[in-house]
Formats: sequence, C-alpha cells, structure tokens
Amino acid sequence: MSVTVVGSIAFDAVQTPAGSRERMLGGAATHFALAASFFDRVHVVGPVGDDFGDAEMDVLRIRGTNVDDVERVAGGSTFFWSGRYHEDLNTRDTLDTQLNVFESFEPKLSTASLASEVLFLANIQPGLQLKVREQCEAARFVALDSMNLWIDIARAELDEVIARVDCLVLNDEELRQLTGKPNLFSAAHAVLEAGPSIVVAKQGGYGSAMVTRDDFFALPAYPLHEVVDPTGAGDTFAGGFVGFLASRPPSERLSAPVLRNAMAYGTALASFNVEQFGTEGVASVTGEQVRERVRDLDRFARFDPIDAPLAG
Amino acid sequence: MSVTVVGSIAFDAVQTPAGSRERMLGGAATHFALAASFFDRVHVVGPVGDDFGDAEMDVLRIRGTNVDDVERVAGGSTFFWSGRYHEDLNTRDTLDTQLNVFESFEPKLSTASLASEVLFLANIQPGLQLKVREQCEAARFVALDSMNLWIDIARAELDEVIARVDCLVLNDEELRQLTGKPNLFSAAHAVLEAGPSIVVAKQGGYGSAMVTRDDFFALPAYPLHEVVDPTGAGDTFAGGFVGFLASRPPSERLSAPVLRNAMAYGTALASFNVEQFGTEGVASVTGEQVRERVRDLDRFARFDPIDAPLAG
Repeated sequence: MSVTVVGSIAFDAVQTPAGSRERMLGGAATHFALAASFFDRVHVVGPVGDDFGDAEMDVLRIRGTNVDDVERVAGGSTFFWSGRYHEDLNTRDTLDTQLNVFESFEPKLSTASLASEVLFLANIQPGLQLKVREQCEAARFVALDSMNLWIDIARAELDEVIARVDCLVLNDEELRQLTGKPNLFSAAHAVLEAGPSIVVAKQGGYGSAMVTRDDFFALPAYPLHEVVDPTGAGDTFAGGFVGFLASRPPSERLSAPVLRNAMAYGTALASFNVEQFGTEGVASVTGEQVRERVRDLDRFARFDPIDAPLAG
Repeated sequence: MSVTVVGSIAFDAVQTPAGSRERMLGGAATHFALAASFFDRVHVVGPVGDDFGDAEMDVLRIRGTNVDDVERVAGGSTFFWSGRYHEDLNTRDTLDTQLNVFESFEPKLSTASLASEVLFLANIQPGLQLKVREQCEAARFVALDSMNLWIDIARAELDEVIARVDCLVLNDEELRQLTGKPNLFSAAHAVLEAGPSIVVAKQGGYGSAMVTRDDFFALPAYPLHEVVDPTGAGDTFAGGFVGFLASRPPSERLSAPVLRNAMAYGTALASFNVEQFGTEGVASVTGEQVRERVRDLDRFARFDPIDAPLAG
C-alpha cells in the first residue's frame, strides 16, 4: 500500500523570534511526505526547478519516499516563499511569493502514484485537485487541504472537490470563511453535509480538533518551551494524520479510536517540526521519539471524571 | 467550609452575533459565585449601587450564596460595562466602562467571609487583592485573576500578590504579556517560578490549559452549535475550577486527577454560560446537566494510544 501527495515543493526564507533562514527546503508536499513516510511508502508529485539539488532530493527520499514524480522543469526555478512570524508565532506576514515552476504546474502521475490507495491533495488550485482526484481511481481515502485564496477566487471548483473527498483539513479561520459559520463545531457540521466524513481543524499553537458525524475530539499542541519555526506544521500534522490512517486497514479508518490516534501522531510529528527550522526536525527524529510523544499526549489529554455532589 | 470571592458585580450591555441585551446582571464575582455555588457555600464581597434591585440580589443568592458582604453604596450606581463581540466571538470591543461605585471600592470582609478556607481574588486592582489576601489568614487555597491594565500600570503590586497565591488564572495573551515569554508553556513555567503552584490559561473558544511543576493538561471548550454570549465565561470557568477544588480535602488540591476534574467542571459550567446571555445559563442549569457535560468532555478528550510500527 502507499500514499500519494500532490502539492508544492519549495524553498522558504523565514524570520522567527528564534532566528532566521535564508533558504531552506519546504513546501506542503515536502512536509507531508517527511511525516507520512514513517507509516507507509509515499509518492511525491510536484515540480522543482534547476536550482533543486541532490541534497534536497535526498531529504525528500528519507524513509523510502518515491520521488519519480518530482518533475524537474528545465530552465525554471523552484517555488519560493518568504515570511516573518510575529512574537506569538501564531501569525505571520508573507514577505515574498515567487510561484516560478509552480505557476504552470500540471500534475502528471505515474502508474505507481495512481495506484496508491490513499491520496493527499495538498493546498493547490482546486481545479488541479479535482483533476488529480478523478485520475486516482484506486484511492479509497482522500484528504484535502486548501486556503483562503481559493475560497475567494475558485469557490465553485473548491466546493466540487470538497464534495469528493473523505476528509477536509483546514485551519480554523478558513473553516469559518468557507462556511460562514462563526464557530468550529457548526462550521465543521456544515462541511460534513457537503460530503466529507471527517473535518480536521488546525488551530496552530492550540492544537487541533476533529469532527465527524458522530464524534468530536480535540487535542492540544504538544507543550514546548520554545517554538523555533512553525512553517510546515500543518502539512506535517496532515502527513502524520493521513499516514497513520494509511497504515490501518480501510475498514478502521472511520473508527473513532483510530482517527484519534491519527490526530495524536499528527500532533506529535508537528511538534518535532516546529522545534527546528524547516525540515530539520522531522528529517532527523526517530520512530521511537514519535511514539514517546504520542504516549505523552495521552497523559496530557485524559482525565477520569469524578461525579461531584452538586447543589441544584 | 466555604469560598469567598472578591470582585465586581455589574450591569452589562452586550451585542453579539446572536442578539443583544441592554442591561443584564454581570461582573466577575457574580459569574464566579453562580458557578462555585454548585460545590460549596460562597461569600460574595463587592459593591453595588442604588440601582441594584431585589431581582438581581436573588440571582446572586442562588444555591445558597451569602450576600451579606455585598455592599450597597447609597447614592451610587452599579459598575457598568458595554461591549460588542466580533463575528468569531473570541474578540470584542469595549464600548463603555463606568466604574461608578467600583471606583472607590475598599473590600470589607465580615468574619464569615474571612473564615473561608478558599479565596478567589477576581480581577480588581492588585493593591486591593493584596490587602484582602493579607486579611484572609484562614485561606489555605487562593486563586487570582487579573488583566492587561494592571500588568501595565500596577506591575509591582501585581507581582507581589501573585507571589502569595496558589493559583493564577489568566488568559493566554495576559500570560505572555506578564512574562514576556511567547508561548504558553514557557510563560506558565515563568509564573511557577514566581510562587504559584498552578497556572491556568484561559483560551476562549479553544478551551483552557493547566501547568503545574510536574503536570500539563489541556481541555477543549465544550463543542456547541451556537455561542450566544461569551461574557463571564472566564469567571464562570474559574468558579467551577475553584469551587470543585474547595469541595475536596485540602490534601487533594494539588493532585493531578483532582485538578483535571476541576478543569472539566470549569469547562462544563463555562459552556452553559456562553449558551445564553449573562447569568441566564448558569442560573438555571442543574447539577446533573453539569455532570453530564463533564462526562461528555471525558469522551471528547481521551484516546488510547496505539503503538504504530514506524520507519526509522
């Protein structure tokens, strides 16, 4: 079995309260693949330019990720993003975006990528997500991310692709924008009516919440003394979440205990992502370190209810 | 045993996406008392004006709360606050604040209020909190709330009183402002070094988190399809949290299982607060409804870790 991810591969420049990097490997597909590769064989589909070197390709290949569908566009440059984080690290300003080879990206999936049983459509133009969704006939579980830009300018296509996926992963604000509902729970239920069985709300430093037709689950972010660089945390979370589900039998993927573990693995992996710049944390962490943080999260989240005698 | 709360009693005017109220009972001491009264006898210490009627006093008295130390200032008007909430309900603009009788408030505690074993210093001028703290020699557990204003203009007194309480309850942003630490975990640990054993961060619609020297626990807000009015949610949470602790033997109050239940009771009670305007929700809810939401929260928060086989 395997997981295919379609999305951006990038160079990022970031400034955070902890320091800065002028050029580091990034992109949604990259962060997703590094996390999901702990669980299953990952196929990455995305474009890079002539400036993408062997060192970067080696990082993508960590834990066996297949890069045959990383398309090298001759004469082009890799997608570049630059941003500066605010003191609280939950907000940031984009300083520069150069789409480069990403501007004319048309996903081309090899037979191997098309054969994956699990598909993650990272944040790209919804029309392209829809084309990929249609091509991947073997996919039995499809998750999708998007962003405010597409809600604004490609709403019809976005709605069409959302109706055809199993799981929508968005941040809080995007969920509100998409549905016009002011709070997470009502917004998530509006999405469930549109098709998906699972809605995951990414909440930055607050963690994440999951809503299905008959379950609600929320998990805090892993507590850290220092967050160095949040770039890619959401895609790393998605890689852990989707990767964990990919590693389970299809019949289990809508069961609450399995979905909750998927949230925990996503959360644990995201914590390693934010502890270092770019891909440094998740590239170097071991499986046992990930499992250890999942066990920690269990302890941070549970309580055993005491039935208090109450007046009234 | 009993709990004493010192703080504001108010009339509030609010506009929320769900509607508006021109004059409703509010104030930190009011919301705290309505929640804490489920667990123990509460003594309310705070000033009101001639405009405070029997109907409002009857609400304060619900579940046996003692109002002997509600000081009626002849010729004065009750503290008045007016605000408008934004669409997401996590942010609001203050439209008007009239301190009225609260401006010259000097807490006067009767023998009964002084005898309480548990004390909550709601958000008032830190110098007054310190005086009350010194008078309440019987108090074995003291919790304190504050706000950005006092961090700005009364920092020395605030530091002094924080050093003398067991538990600090603040919102996220105030914790960051107080400590200069950008994230919750590091900010909370900075507070623990200053004296308190427990730091609770109120996170609005995201729920709350608790940090002690050897524990971390976070709980989401109770999921609701509609939030009507968040006014008083933080004080209601504090009332449930401190009230639950007051109902337990002193030796249990620093134990993780008991503190986690205190968080859950605070969270459940806050959810009833935000479902209706002002005090309407918590005034009318039953003990069994509160316990039911605590049991729900247990189901929303826990997972049983699966040890996944991971690459690497």
